[in-house]
Amino acid sequence: MTPFSFTLKTTDGKARRGRLDTAHGPIETPVFMPVGTVGTVKAMMPDSVRATGAQIILGNTYHLMLRPGAGQVAALGGLHKFMDWPGPILTDSGGFQVMSLSKLRKITEEGVTFQSHLDGDTIHLTPERSMEIQHLLDSTITMAFDECTPFPATYEQAADSMRMSMRWAQRSRDAFVAREGYGIFGIMQGSVFRDLREESAAALTRTGFNGYAVGGLAVGEGQEAMFEVLDYAPGLLPQDKPRYLMGVGTPSDIVGSVLRGIDMFDCVMPTRSGRTGQAFIPGGTLNINNACHKADPRPLDDTCDCPACTRHSRAYLHHLFKAREILGCMLLTWHNIRHYQRLMADIRQAIEENRYTNFAHDFLARETAHEPATEA
Amino acid sequence: MTPFSFTLKTTDGKARRGRLDTAHGPIETPVFMPVGTVGTVKAMMPDSVRATGAQIILGNTYHLMLRPGAGQVAALGGLHKFMDWPGPILTDSGGFQVMSLSKLRKITEEGVTFQSHLDGDTIHLTPERSMEIQHLLDSTITMAFDECTPFPATYEQAADSMRMSMRWAQRSRDAFVAREGYGIFGIMQGSVFRDLREESAAALTRTGFNGYAVGGLAVGEGQEAMFEVLDYAPGLLPQDKPRYLMGVGTPSDIVGSVLRGIDMFDCVMPTRSGRTGQAFIPGGTLNINNACHKADPRPLDDTCDCPACTRHSRAYLHHLFKAREILGCMLLTWHNIRHYQRLMADIRQAIEENRYTNFAHDFLARETAHEPATEA
Repeated sequence: MTPFSFTLKTTDGKARRGRLDTAHGPIETPVFMPVGTVGTVKAMMPDSVRATGAQIILGNTYHLMLRPGAGQVAALGGLHKFMDWPGPILTDSGGFQVMSLSKLRKITEEGVTFQSHLDGDTIHLTPERSMEIQHLLDSTITMAFDECTPFPATYEQAADSMRMSMRWAQRSRDAFVAREGYGIFGIMQGSVFRDLREESAAALTRTGFNGYAVGGLAVGEGQEAMFEVLDYAPGLLPQDKPRYLMGVGTPSDIVGSVLRGIDMFDCVMPTRSGRTGQAFIPGGTLNINNACHKADPRPLDDTCDCPACTRHSRAYLHHLFKAREILGCMLLTWHNIRHYQRLMADIRQAIEENRYTNFAHDFLARETAHEPATEA
Repeated sequence: MTPFSFTLKTTDGKARRGRLDTAHGPIETPVFMPVGTVGTVKAMMPDSVRATGAQIILGNTYHLMLRPGAGQVAALGGLHKFMDWPGPILTDSGGFQVMSLSKLRKITEEGVTFQSHLDGDTIHLTPERSMEIQHLLDSTITMAFDECTPFPATYEQAADSMRMSMRWAQRSRDAFVAREGYGIFGIMQGSVFRDLREESAAALTRTGFNGYAVGGLAVGEGQEAMFEVLDYAPGLLPQDKPRYLMGVGTPSDIVGSVLRGIDMFDCVMPTRSGRTGQAFIPGGTLNINNACHKADPRPLDDTCDCPACTRHSRAYLHHLFKAREILGCMLLTWHNIRHYQRLMADIRQAIEENRYTNFAHDFLARETAHEPATEA
């Protein structure tokens, strides 16, 4: 078996080019992880997800515990086998979804009690239970159970929330069952307050994790405020472990975050946008539903090698969305994930070639020039 | 270029093993054609349709004339290029959909006036206009414009309707632009009345087509009544041309119709059923939504080589449908089309080996024993 380990291959300024070895295969970083909430990357065959270049995908503890149930997934051989994804899987701990999706939650030191958004059942989730569920799912990377501090929060709210999350992080670490090639990540909180971020990083480092996430960002604070935190937060974490920015983001969010020392990303943006007709293209996005695409014989993106771009016209994709055809969601999801994977490959190459600062500068200037989403 | 031609390779009783050569490739018969109503076989990538063994697909004149419009498809290079299906495409003439989908129709000798089911626009469709549209779509096999006689119909209604369809068939033939490798099929009507079927067949044969469809069946008359017509109707048509039974059907419908001399079939059943969770399996069907599949680690059909069966459990497919995930539709559609294509390959082989009567007898006995749809 392969031990769970992170190798920092090279750095370029704060940007890092690394490799994470796991029981389910290696991951070249910086990496973007497509989201497979309930055991499927929506509208994609597992083979197609692989074909985009995705190395690792996300699963959601909250969704899978409710349906089909973690014990059910375990009885069927774990999440890898269940969904036919033999590669690495990272599962979030459920903390974020309890906050964003469930109703009537009650948070105590012990954990969270909430009502299922599916059937209203009362459910109790604790650090120990979250670890048990992620173990049953056979997650390659388990996330510590935390409270995602809402934004905005007062200093006191952010401090109280962060400190409870740090106690939950220790309980998560204690409950995590170590297995060769599997890892557990702690999650830094502290909102936009530097001393709280420092306190959180110190607490997590004392406990010791296989990787560290920066949590509590991309929750409405905006890119500028996020980058302000990322100007110092990654540097508070151990150099020799991977750093994961949860729930981020747009291509420019990712490029700017890599510039500040982040290694791992996940976001529903490429998949969710794909299902509504928003496509990522160089320099911005376009909405394929717009009438201007009705007769356009050009591909979505003539630099892209995905089936939507090599096989079809914008006019055809427009037609599929107008006719509400499933194939429209399939093709745009594929394109968007491929777009993100090509971006990550470009990022990795730029770091390897020690030209990442210029790459990021050019990229952000180009994206900014096209904000908001434009029609090419 | 290849001429449009039909070769009858061998017969076994009334069952026929043939080959149809077209401008867009050969078709081994008996053949089942998946339906791609508005320029996509729903929930399938074109490559996946090919991977099922499908040789030819259907397009719908009615749907495509309304959206995106035949001129639009022509401007984008024709339906083959538009939807990335370089193989043969058969388009129906629009007659059937005008009857089943549109409102406020008025039928005259000239043609049909109806309101679009999409936006209520008033549209006029004639044999000449249907030919023009199918030409613009670049259809490999054009269908004559006809009135699909409703069932039940009195003898007089059936006779009047059939005779108008025969006049429309002649106008369709006259308006069809002959091109190397392209063909036009006439459609026999006459409901369940033998002398009307004879009169219709004689009229069509006098006009002369590249193939002949048996129309007006599978419209509610039931399998027994359909087989009664098929006991004599195919024999009224030229031996040296392909015979196409429109809109049929279940596996047992197909097996019994091949036994009676039919060469070509199309039906929305495998695709539509796939999207609602009904899967075709040996001996019948199963509904993957049923709770009995929740924890079942077995494949849908352990004799099938499609991704749904080789990669996933019934429990996973059940989960996808419960969670209303698009991948559920994708996998079950793929399975059902593959199931139909495997059936057609088995049928062709049985005819080649001169054992089709036994094959059909065994198949129908097995299917009947399992009717209605059962849970394996």
